[in-house]
Amino acid sequence: MTQADHTAPVEETTPDHSPSSALPPLRLGVAGLGTVGAGLLALLERCEGNLSRHCGRDVVVQAVSARSRGRDRGVSLEGVTWHDDPVALARDPEVDIVVELIGGSDGPARAVVENALRLGKPVVTANKALIARHGHELAALSQQYQAPVLYEAAVGGALPAVRLVRDTCSADEVLCVGGILNGTCNYILTEMANTGRSFADVLDEAQAKGYAEADPSTDIDGVDTAHKLAILAGLAFQPLDFTSIPVTGIRHVTTEDLRFAATLGYRVRLLGMARRGLGASTPPEAWVQPCLVPEDSALATVNGVYNAVTAEAHFAGPLVITGQGAGAGPTASAVASDIAALARNWPSRTHAFPLWGVHSQPASGRDVLGEGKAAGAENVTSRFYMRCEVDDRPGVMADVASILRDHGVSVHQVIQHEAALPNHVHMALVTHPANAEAVAQAAQRMAMLPCIHETPMVMKVEPS
Amino acid sequence: MTQADHTAPVEETTPDHSPSSALPPLRLGVAGLGTVGAGLLALLERCEGNLSRHCGRDVVVQAVSARSRGRDRGVSLEGVTWHDDPVALARDPEVDIVVELIGGSDGPARAVVENALRLGKPVVTANKALIARHGHELAALSQQYQAPVLYEAAVGGALPAVRLVRDTCSADEVLCVGGILNGTCNYILTEMANTGRSFADVLDEAQAKGYAEADPSTDIDGVDTAHKLAILAGLAFQPLDFTSIPVTGIRHVTTEDLRFAATLGYRVRLLGMARRGLGASTPPEAWVQPCLVPEDSALATVNGVYNAVTAEAHFAGPLVITGQGAGAGPTASAVASDIAALARNWPSRTHAFPLWGVHSQPASGRDVLGEGKAAGAENVTSRFYMRCEVDDRPGVMADVASILRDHGVSVHQVIQHEAALPNHVHMALVTHPANAEAVAQAAQRMAMLPCIHETPMVMKVEPS
Repeated sequence: MTQADHTAPVEETTPDHSPSSALPPLRLGVAGLGTVGAGLLALLERCEGNLSRHCGRDVVVQAVSARSRGRDRGVSLEGVTWHDDPVALARDPEVDIVVELIGGSDGPARAVVENALRLGKPVVTANKALIARHGHELAALSQQYQAPVLYEAAVGGALPAVRLVRDTCSADEVLCVGGILNGTCNYILTEMANTGRSFADVLDEAQAKGYAEADPSTDIDGVDTAHKLAILAGLAFQPLDFTSIPVTGIRHVTTEDLRFAATLGYRVRLLGMARRGLGASTPPEAWVQPCLVPEDSALATVNGVYNAVTAEAHFAGPLVITGQGAGAGPTASAVASDIAALARNWPSRTHAFPLWGVHSQPASGRDVLGEGKAAGAENVTSRFYMRCEVDDRPGVMADVASILRDHGVSVHQVIQHEAALPNHVHMALVTHPANAEAVAQAAQRMAMLPCIHETPMVMKVEPS
Repeated sequence: MTQADHTAPVEETTPDHSPSSALPPLRLGVAGLGTVGAGLLALLERCEGNLSRHCGRDVVVQAVSARSRGRDRGVSLEGVTWHDDPVALARDPEVDIVVELIGGSDGPARAVVENALRLGKPVVTANKALIARHGHELAALSQQYQAPVLYEAAVGGALPAVRLVRDTCSADEVLCVGGILNGTCNYILTEMANTGRSFADVLDEAQAKGYAEADPSTDIDGVDTAHKLAILAGLAFQPLDFTSIPVTGIRHVTTEDLRFAATLGYRVRLLGMARRGLGASTPPEAWVQPCLVPEDSALATVNGVYNAVTAEAHFAGPLVITGQGAGAGPTASAVASDIAALARNWPSRTHAFPLWGVHSQPASGRDVLGEGKAAGAENVTSRFYMRCEVDDRPGVMADVASILRDHGVSVHQVIQHEAALPNHVHMALVTHPANAEAVAQAAQRMAMLPCIHETPMVMKVEPS
């Protein structure tokens, strides 16, 4: 990469009459041939012509690596080098771009990416856990060796979530990023609301249909959403220590909650959201939790396994993208779009690691930004939803109301539904804007009332 | 731009230890200081730090050009070179990037862009008319002089419509692109539906509020939508002769249509849509017309001045982006994102003109694709909505039904509303999927029935 600059005096530049000799093909090494890896090979087979037309050169699969060589993946591997060891694939001198589709924040996935970067090879990955947890170290490596890492597929599958923040909002002042980032959770919440079935029931069905993993905790406990949020918040604001993001999943959302939410004019969605801190030195607010969203909002209309990514910037205003956030085709499409971006600008040394809002330019010598901690949601001012099972007798509402009053929380709506047990009712309310900590304390005190049979379920209304 | 390729044998590349000496700032020449131009200067003032952090260098406004030098635009022009002649601005040796915000498909806007390109200077423009009508010639110039033209702001304001097709779907097979591309029309249709007021009434109000121009025909007759559609279709499929796209605006949509649509479970939206032709040599279908969209579809939830851009690709599936499609802030944000992209990869010679799906690489010698004609909508198979005022007497429905039967059109739903005149009713129906030409012919024959008082209004249901 030269540092030549295009600031020379004006003169008519010479028209380009270079010969039409074809550039040599770019050679991919694909590590990991699971659902996404096989999807990528299928895409490259079908869209070969498109890709070379878009990039001005051919892109070929040179080498692959996976655990089981014999397995039929529905795509031909003829003429493709096989590596048992994915690190050997990354180091294969005939591989120009390393595509990491192994998954997992450490182990072979991390080794593959680090080895590729140390050799100055660009990396394309769909690995959200790796980027969320080690993006900071990888950014330093990427900068040191001037090798780009692209990861559009890590957030929101086919949705251009990374590009939305990195490219679309690159010159603007981002106020807020996030959205519905996990299709499994959204499927479960939508099904529960539509059918009135329990969480456990719908989860079983989702596992049977392949929408949820055998061990579903990464999805339903919000960890996957948090990985994606950390990446978006890092791009929009500053790199966040992943472990500082407070995460609540959807295990404790009941069919009563979904019924109450609908009656009150809301839907329940698992959201990951990050907001710019108020001052330059204030860290961004970032959290993952099930929220009530107004039924006429864009997020409320996102059903089933679909995802939605939102960003709001000072000049651009609010932007929402919806689409398929997971699956072989959508994820492979996003991976291929990153490959195309590299091929189009080959050899690309800029965009070395467009994470954390820093685009390391060789000559700028800027450092990767340091990691910060998320502010969490404890001090947020927002409307909140509260629900609990209470005795069906006079005075209960008065007890609840006085506790809320004592904590400075004012009530906007209250409703009741009958409960299964005699003389029990489900009570739900939505507050006026209140401090999150005050609401949490009020919920703790309500739990101690004899007429209340459980710690109230509390969910934020989003937007506040 | 060297043709060196990164396919050398593996060796550990040398870490970059270049000094942190700052790169010289990139110097913008901004031609046109109307709403968007002033918005851009305001953005550059507020987001200066963001932009230089993202780009690894400063970006400064070096020169401006506008009709009236004295006008107060709310931004300081101190230290900025003033050019009365925008072409002189384009040729100013101290201008590195030319930003064209004059507008109009010909005249000074075109002269500015052509002059800049012939000097090898990158151009950023928000000018949809220019790109839609002369993109093909500009692509050739851009390729010849290796100067990029970026135009994200030309389609959908802040929405990353161009990036969605050009970057996100770059390796995939696009099946369909389009959407709600004009905020003025969407505002009028939404207002008419919400208030029951007439087209003329709401248009007057939109003009008073500044949502519609004094001469509103470019918006309400669908020309603006067609400009944007031509750009998207060109990126997704092939360059289209703009004049070959059939365009119908919203002048003839009545409050009755909106009432019927709601009753039947639809909303009315002005859509521009383009679909891949069935065979490799079949031109893409492309049209602009008011359509009925199902009330639970993503497009139906887009209200007021908001825009929606949709794309569907074979692997990615359907993608929808919503946001503010016009206005100073959103358009300036998109213009600035293109400036940032250039600054980040400076000096950028690739992406020379990412229009028409061809990314001209200096060494590839590929030609810009030739222009084609749109297939139009005459032979589309779709459900259709038909509405007309008829006599309120027995036998009318039988007459209508037999005409439709004679043309092979089968009816799915029929409803009637009372009309203003005694013994008149408004009748509306939705067909089963039928040939567009057959429906048009049936409408012509229906108009000749004595019991029918007007040529029926016909609108496509979308998707079919």
